[in-house]
Amino acid sequence: MPQLRIALAQVNATVGDLSGNAALVVEWTRKAREGGAHLVVFPEMVLTGYPVEDLAIRTSFARASFEALDALAVSLDDAGLGSVAAVVGYLEHDSVGPRNAVGVLYGGRVVARQSKHHLPNYGVFDERRYFKPGSSLDILRINGVEVGMVICEDLWQDGGPITALGDAGVDLVVSPNASPYERKKDDQRLPLVVRRAAEAGAPLAYCNLVGGQDELVFDGDSLVVGADGQLIGRAPQFVEHLMLVDFDLPSSASYEQGQIGDFYVRRVFVSDAVAPYEPLPAPRVFEPLSDEAEVWHALVTGLRDYVHKNGFRSVVLGLSGGIDSAVVASLAVDALGADSVYGVSMPSSYSSEHSRSDASDMAARTGLHFSTEPIGEMVSVYVSQLGLTGLAEENIQARCRGMLLMALSNQHGHLVLATGNKSELAVGYSTIYGDAVGGYAPIKDVLKTLVWDLARWRNAEAEKRGEVPPIPENSISKPPSAELRPGQVDSDSLPDYSVLDDLLDDYVEGDRGYDDLLAAGFEAELVDRVLRMVDRAEYKRRQYPPGTKISNKAFGRDRRLPITNGWREG
Amino acid sequence: MPQLRIALAQVNATVGDLSGNAALVVEWTRKAREGGAHLVVFPEMVLTGYPVEDLAIRTSFARASFEALDALAVSLDDAGLGSVAAVVGYLEHDSVGPRNAVGVLYGGRVVARQSKHHLPNYGVFDERRYFKPGSSLDILRINGVEVGMVICEDLWQDGGPITALGDAGVDLVVSPNASPYERKKDDQRLPLVVRRAAEAGAPLAYCNLVGGQDELVFDGDSLVVGADGQLIGRAPQFVEHLMLVDFDLPSSASYEQGQIGDFYVRRVFVSDAVAPYEPLPAPRVFEPLSDEAEVWHALVTGLRDYVHKNGFRSVVLGLSGGIDSAVVASLAVDALGADSVYGVSMPSSYSSEHSRSDASDMAARTGLHFSTEPIGEMVSVYVSQLGLTGLAEENIQARCRGMLLMALSNQHGHLVLATGNKSELAVGYSTIYGDAVGGYAPIKDVLKTLVWDLARWRNAEAEKRGEVPPIPENSISKPPSAELRPGQVDSDSLPDYSVLDDLLDDYVEGDRGYDDLLAAGFEAELVDRVLRMVDRAEYKRRQYPPGTKISNKAFGRDRRLPITNGWREG
Repeated sequence: MPQLRIALAQVNATVGDLSGNAALVVEWTRKAREGGAHLVVFPEMVLTGYPVEDLAIRTSFARASFEALDALAVSLDDAGLGSVAAVVGYLEHDSVGPRNAVGVLYGGRVVARQSKHHLPNYGVFDERRYFKPGSSLDILRINGVEVGMVICEDLWQDGGPITALGDAGVDLVVSPNASPYERKKDDQRLPLVVRRAAEAGAPLAYCNLVGGQDELVFDGDSLVVGADGQLIGRAPQFVEHLMLVDFDLPSSASYEQGQIGDFYVRRVFVSDAVAPYEPLPAPRVFEPLSDEAEVWHALVTGLRDYVHKNGFRSVVLGLSGGIDSAVVASLAVDALGADSVYGVSMPSSYSSEHSRSDASDMAARTGLHFSTEPIGEMVSVYVSQLGLTGLAEENIQARCRGMLLMALSNQHGHLVLATGNKSELAVGYSTIYGDAVGGYAPIKDVLKTLVWDLARWRNAEAEKRGEVPPIPENSISKPPSAELRPGQVDSDSLPDYSVLDDLLDDYVEGDRGYDDLLAAGFEAELVDRVLRMVDRAEYKRRQYPPGTKISNKAFGRDRRLPITNGWREG
Repeated sequence: MPQLRIALAQVNATVGDLSGNAALVVEWTRKAREGGAHLVVFPEMVLTGYPVEDLAIRTSFARASFEALDALAVSLDDAGLGSVAAVVGYLEHDSVGPRNAVGVLYGGRVVARQSKHHLPNYGVFDERRYFKPGSSLDILRINGVEVGMVICEDLWQDGGPITALGDAGVDLVVSPNASPYERKKDDQRLPLVVRRAAEAGAPLAYCNLVGGQDELVFDGDSLVVGADGQLIGRAPQFVEHLMLVDFDLPSSASYEQGQIGDFYVRRVFVSDAVAPYEPLPAPRVFEPLSDEAEVWHALVTGLRDYVHKNGFRSVVLGLSGGIDSAVVASLAVDALGADSVYGVSMPSSYSSEHSRSDASDMAARTGLHFSTEPIGEMVSVYVSQLGLTGLAEENIQARCRGMLLMALSNQHGHLVLATGNKSELAVGYSTIYGDAVGGYAPIKDVLKTLVWDLARWRNAEAEKRGEVPPIPENSISKPPSAELRPGQVDSDSLPDYSVLDDLLDDYVEGDRGYDDLLAAGFEAELVDRVLRMVDRAEYKRRQYPPGTKISNKAFGRDRRLPITNGWREG
C-alpha cells in the first residue's frame, strides 16, 4: 500500500503581513521536510492571515496575495523544499471576484488551486460579503495517494465537497481551517471530523489556525482521524505545533473525475509512490484543556497577539484593587511578562484604603511596574468650574482616570487596557471615555461570575506550581464597587451577579425572548429591568474597544477593516 | 380601460418602533384614502424601520413584527381604511428563516405576501446575513388592474422578479424601497426605473424611504414612470410626501401564473373594477436638488433624526472658531433650531484671539446658546503632575475639551456632537477621546474641501433669502489649525487639502491601488505618505461615532445592532 507522511503546521499568521506569513510557511515547510513529510498542510488563508475582512475586496491586496503565492512557490523551491507539497491558503481574485482559496505549491510552481464552496455568513463570519463560492475540486496524487482538500466551512456543512470527494474516490482528505475559539468548541469538532471522515470514506486531517487576530482567537486543536473514526492525533491548544502523521493507505475502489454533483473534479498528478520506509510512531493525542484553563489561555493569547501584532511592547492599566483590574493585570503579566505591564493606582477622595493596598499587593505579587497618580486635583477643577453633581460628578472621575492613562500611553508608548467585564458592559454600568478607555479590553467577553472563577483558578494553578498566587485574596472576596461616590457598591444599581449573569447568558447568548425568560423562572420585574438596561446600553457599546471573543455572541460585534500590519499598498 | 389611483407614501419610519411605525401607516393610509387612492405603497420594511441589522435574527422581534402586521390590518379596517389596499414592508420569519417581506393589507386581513429575492450584501448592506431570499410573486388584481410588486434590490439586479413579472403579464408594478442617499444617486435611479418599466412592459411606481437612521440617510425621491419610460411624477427629496397618481391602463395580452422562471407566480384577487371617475391632474415632477443643497439636506436630516430617534432634545459642541465646528453648528441650527444648540468656546493658552471672536460671532449670527469654558487649569494639572511633553501635551488639550463636553452632556442631557471631517479622520489627524468625542459626528463623511464648499453655499443661500449668513467669513478664509501648540497650522502635518482630498477620493472611494494613483499623476512621495497615514489611522477610526453617510464608502463602516428605539422584548 502506498505510504505518505503528512505534516499539519498549526501556525500563527498575521492579517495583512504577506511577507511575514510567507516566511512562516517557508520556516514550517522546512520543519516538515526535516520530519520527512511529503505533504504539509497550513491553516486557511495562512498567506493573508484570517479574517481579512474588507481587504478581500481591495483588488490591489488580492493581486499582492496571488503574486506572493507564486513567489512563495519559487522561494520554497530555492530553499530546497520544492519536493514537499505545501497546501497554502491565500486570497484569489479571478474574473468572478475574490475567493477564499488554497494553492498547492510543489517544485517551484502552483500545481493546484481550489476555492471554498460554503461561505459562512453568521456570527463572526461575513464571507458572502467578501468571497465568491468555488465549484471545482482538485484531487492531488502524492506518492500514489489520492488526496482531496476541503476548506473549513466546507467541512461543517452537510453535503457539498465532502460528499463529492466520497463519490469521486479519495484516499485521504486534508482540511485547512481558521475556526475561532468558542467555549466548549472542541466538543463539537471531533465528532464532526469523525462524521466527515466516514462520509469521505477516508482519513481526515484537520489543520487549524492558532493565535489572536483582532477580536478573534484561534485555538489550534488540529486533529487527525482514521476512516473508521479513530482519533489518531490531536495537537495542543493555543500554541504553534507541527504534527507528523504516517499513512499506509489502501487504494479507493475507483477514482472518478469530471462533473460530480455540483463540483467539477480534476485529478492532479504531483508525485510517484516512494520506496517503503519505516513509519513514525503515532502522534500524541493532547488532551483539551479544562474550561477555565481554556478561557485563560484564550484571553492571554488574544491579548498577547493584539499587543504584538499592532506593534506595541507594553501595556498600561488602572489598578483599582478590584477583581476586574486584578484579573486583567494577571492576564497581561502572563501574556507579556511583568516588565511590560504598568499598573497605575488612581485614587480619588472616595477611594477606600483597601483599593490602594490591594492594588499595591497585586503589583508586589506579580512584579509589574506600579505607580500612584491621585486624580483629586483634576476632578476638582472640573467639578468646581462646571458645577457638576450626581452622575456628571461620578463620570468625571472615571474620565479623568481614562485621560490620565491615555496621557501615559502617549508619553511612554504603552497600549491602554480597558478592564470592563461583559456583565457591566451589557447593562451599561460603565463610563464611556472613562473606564471604557483603551485600545483593547481583555475581558469584555467575560461575565463577572467567570471573572471570579478565573481568578480563583489562576491562583490555584500558582499554588500547584509552588508560585505566589498573583491575585490578592481580598480583591476576590470583597464586594465589587465602582467607588465613584461614598459607600457605593455595585449591588446598589445591579442585581446579584449570579442572577444577572444567568439572565444575560440566556438573553444574549441564547437569544431567548421575554416569555421564554419568564418560563425559565426569572422574575418579571428583574427581566424588565435587565432587558431595558441591555437595550439601552447598546448606545454606549458602540465605542467599546476590541477584546478576545470567547463566546459566539460577544457584545460589540464589530466587523471592520482589520489593521493591515505588514501589508501596504505598493 | 380599468382605472386605478395609487398613492406613494414616502414616510420616515424608525427602526424598532413597531407601534410608532404602525401609527404612521394608519395616518398615511388615511391621507391616501382622503386623496381617493385605491392602493397605497409604503417604503421597504416600513413597519420595522430599515436597516434592522441584527434585530432580524432575533426571533422575538420577528414575531413582534408579523403580529404587528396582522394587528395593523385590523386597525386599518377599524379606522375605516380597509378598502384601500396597503403594501406594507415588514420582517417575516418562516420555517426557512427571516425574510425581508411585504404584506398587502385589505379588508382587515393580510391578503398577499412576498419576500425580497435579491439580497444586497455589499457597501452598507448585509442582507445575506439577515434574510433568506424569496421565490414567489403575488400579483394583485385591484380594480381590475394586475399589479406586481418588486422590493428594492429586486429592481436593481438584472433578471429576476422584473423579468418574471414581464413574462407573467402585469399592468402596473409597484416597488417599495429603502435606498440610501449617495451623492448623485438620482442620476442612477431614473434611468434604472425607466429600464425596468420597459422590461415589465408596464408603468413602474417606486416609493422610497425618507429620513435618517443611524449612519444612513434616505432621500425619498420617489418616482413614477410610464411603460414608455416617460417620467410621470417625482417626489421631493428629504421630506415626507404623498404622491397620488391616476392610471387608466390597457390590459396585458395574457396573464400567466404558476412557475415562471425561478418564481412561483400567484394571482390574488383584491377588488373589482370601479365605476369611471374623473382622473387627477398628473403629479408634480420635483427637480432634484443641486449637489451642495442635496448634501446639506442629507446632513441636516441625518443629524435631526439621529438626535430625535435617540431621545435627545439638544446638542452641545465645541466652537473653536474654525470651519468644521462652524459648519456643524450651522447644520445643528438648521436641524434642531438655535434654541436646542449649545456651543462652547474652550480656549487654551495656545488659542488665538480670533478663535474666540469667530466662535462668538458664529453664536451671534445664529442665536445658538454660547458659553466660554477655558481649559487652562485642567490641562496644567495633567501636564505638571505627569510631566507631559510633545504629542502627549497636545492630546491632553483635546481630551480635556472632550471631557468637558461630556460633563456638560451628563449634567444637562445634551448629545455631544463631534466636529471632525472625513479628511482629517482618514489620515488620523484627530485625537481619540479628544475632538473625536461625541455620540454623533455630522461631517465625518465630508472631505475638508467640501466642508468649505458647503459653508459658502449655506451663506449664499442665506443671502439669497435676505438672512444673515450663519458662518463667519473669517472661519471660511483663515488657514485651518488645531491650535495645540504655538503657531501650529494643519499644513505643518498634512498636504494641501485640495491635493489630499483628491487622493483620498481616489484611494477610499475609488479603491485605486498604488500604481493606479501614480498613473493618475500623484507624486510617489505624497502617495506613500498619505497611504501610510490612512492605513495607520484605521486603529483610531474604530472609536469614531456614527455620522451621516453621503458616499458609498464612508470611513468607519460599522454594522451593529441598531438602537431599538420603541421596540423592547415582551
